[in-house]
Amino acid sequence: MTDIFVLNEAQLRGCVTLNLAAVEVVEDAFRALASGKVVMPPILSMDLPAVHGEVDVKTAWIPGFDGFAIKVSPGFFDNPKIGLPSLNGLMILFSARTGLVEALLLDNGYLTDVRTAAAGAVAARHLAPATVTTAGVLGGGVQARLQIEAAHLVRPFNRVLVWARRDDAAAACAADISARLGIEAVTATAEAVVRESQLVITTTPAREPILKTDWLHPGMHITAMGSDQAGKCEIDPAAIDRADLYVCDRLSQAAMLGELRAARAAGVLVGSDPPELGAVVAGNAPGRRHASDITICDLTGTGAQDTAIATFALRAARAAGAGTVIQS
Amino acid sequence: MTDIFVLNEAQLRGCVTLNLAAVEVVEDAFRALASGKVVMPPILSMDLPAVHGEVDVKTAWIPGFDGFAIKVSPGFFDNPKIGLPSLNGLMILFSARTGLVEALLLDNGYLTDVRTAAAGAVAARHLAPATVTTAGVLGGGVQARLQIEAAHLVRPFNRVLVWARRDDAAAACAADISARLGIEAVTATAEAVVRESQLVITTTPAREPILKTDWLHPGMHITAMGSDQAGKCEIDPAAIDRADLYVCDRLSQAAMLGELRAARAAGVLVGSDPPELGAVVAGNAPGRRHASDITICDLTGTGAQDTAIATFALRAARAAGAGTVIQS
Repeated sequence: MTDIFVLNEAQLRGCVTLNLAAVEVVEDAFRALASGKVVMPPILSMDLPAVHGEVDVKTAWIPGFDGFAIKVSPGFFDNPKIGLPSLNGLMILFSARTGLVEALLLDNGYLTDVRTAAAGAVAARHLAPATVTTAGVLGGGVQARLQIEAAHLVRPFNRVLVWARRDDAAAACAADISARLGIEAVTATAEAVVRESQLVITTTPAREPILKTDWLHPGMHITAMGSDQAGKCEIDPAAIDRADLYVCDRLSQAAMLGELRAARAAGVLVGSDPPELGAVVAGNAPGRRHASDITICDLTGTGAQDTAIATFALRAARAAGAGTVIQS
Repeated sequence: MTDIFVLNEAQLRGCVTLNLAAVEVVEDAFRALASGKVVMPPILSMDLPAVHGEVDVKTAWIPGFDGFAIKVSPGFFDNPKIGLPSLNGLMILFSARTGLVEALLLDNGYLTDVRTAAAGAVAARHLAPATVTTAGVLGGGVQARLQIEAAHLVRPFNRVLVWARRDDAAAACAADISARLGIEAVTATAEAVVRESQLVITTTPAREPILKTDWLHPGMHITAMGSDQAGKCEIDPAAIDRADLYVCDRLSQAAMLGELRAARAAGVLVGSDPPELGAVVAGNAPGRRHASDITICDLTGTGAQDTAIATFALRAARAAGAGTVIQS
């Protein structure tokens, strides 16, 4: 019999905030990835066409972390028809020393939202120009809001441009960002978003490039976090070719699921091993060299981030006295 | 907010018993595997040499089942030094229609024990001689006891022979079996166990064959369930070559983790696709043809069994009014 800490989504939202501390713990995970000592198996992915669903399982063991998370992310895309969200899931935190279950984090994807946005902040911190006055986002969903909020922690821009496929979604997103950060946020065309921003984040499920090469300009950084499946692609392969630096979160994943897949299919970055974000964070690979550089970071989402945010959440919950305890 | 059913090990032991109903539900899972409509991704396996540990994640979606399980099985082999069991883990049962978490089964491996033994019963039912008077087991652990108990449900033998590497373990196992089933159970040499039994179950973590070809005799069945890793092997490859029929639970797994791996490495069953147990259960492949046949079944453990037993456990718990409910 051991105690297992259980936290539901409301409790987790109450004690885990997207702040610099969350960014730091995710940055620690990227730094650890660069050490070569992280154990991170390939994603277990189960496609369920019969029920229009899919399930992904991610995990990673990181030296120095007390626990490791196993995250289960189901996506069942007919759920909205019956009034349920498509995405759900939970994280299970195990002791890294004994393998015993320490916590069940019934977050319905909330912690994934936070750690995904936090990774965007890590990318912006290490790759974006030192001064960003305008940030832009392509996409109008939850991650559009959170990525901008996270980036603002490390690059305090005062203007945000938003484009989304649906105008009303873009307007709602801009209004939310403005209210949340207390800065100007307005809608724009995708082209204007990219041309006028020093930091651009792409957060769409696009399957054809939406960010065109012609729109690139010196002194900008792009974080592409939408592509996490073999069929997705947000950035024109020629834009990746044109950039001064391409960095990804995990090379083995990006080559299968990220922008790198489509880029290589188009003959870009074939036969080269671009650096991982962790190597840049750890100082093992160069990041931005010149203010005028164009840099791109391709994020597919790693189990290491899940272990980091789950560890962070349990610590925060304990400090806040949140959650309930059950006996195993 | 949805209700999630939580059951701990004690509650699960109280309502899930290794009986014919459990065998039937696992047999249903094998039958479904033969339909080709089960979605069962490869096992996610994480080796953690730094802490002398490993973690396996298994899952399967089976048409006709209300839920699918994701099972996490950590093994941390230094745990006994601090008074903890090496093996732990839990199953999470999701709705097969919405992907929402339905139940957390904090079984510490108990349900795995039951479904593994139940698979042995399915193998014995379809492959063992119709009449078994003596059953034998190599190994003296939990599965030695449970495999014999499960086999007795489908072949009511009246004598059991037990061999284990340690004599005291074999004696304790025989005494437990005798007390549990009310039949004669005694220790013997490995050779005598095999020579005198019509049904033999191997349950060891052996890395070199312990069951020798010379010991085989007409009219016997062997279920090998110990090997579940690439380095393990219980049955002499020549014995597999000599058998009239070799069957495995899942060909893709057996070729990597089961007796089939070592057999093929020794040149046996190379280039042939032996039948899976599900095909035999479904009547799509022949099982035993003659009373004098020697048959072998190689079990590595499948996610389909986990989904079956988790579904069974939730049904049993609901019927018994066991468990607690938490809000997601």
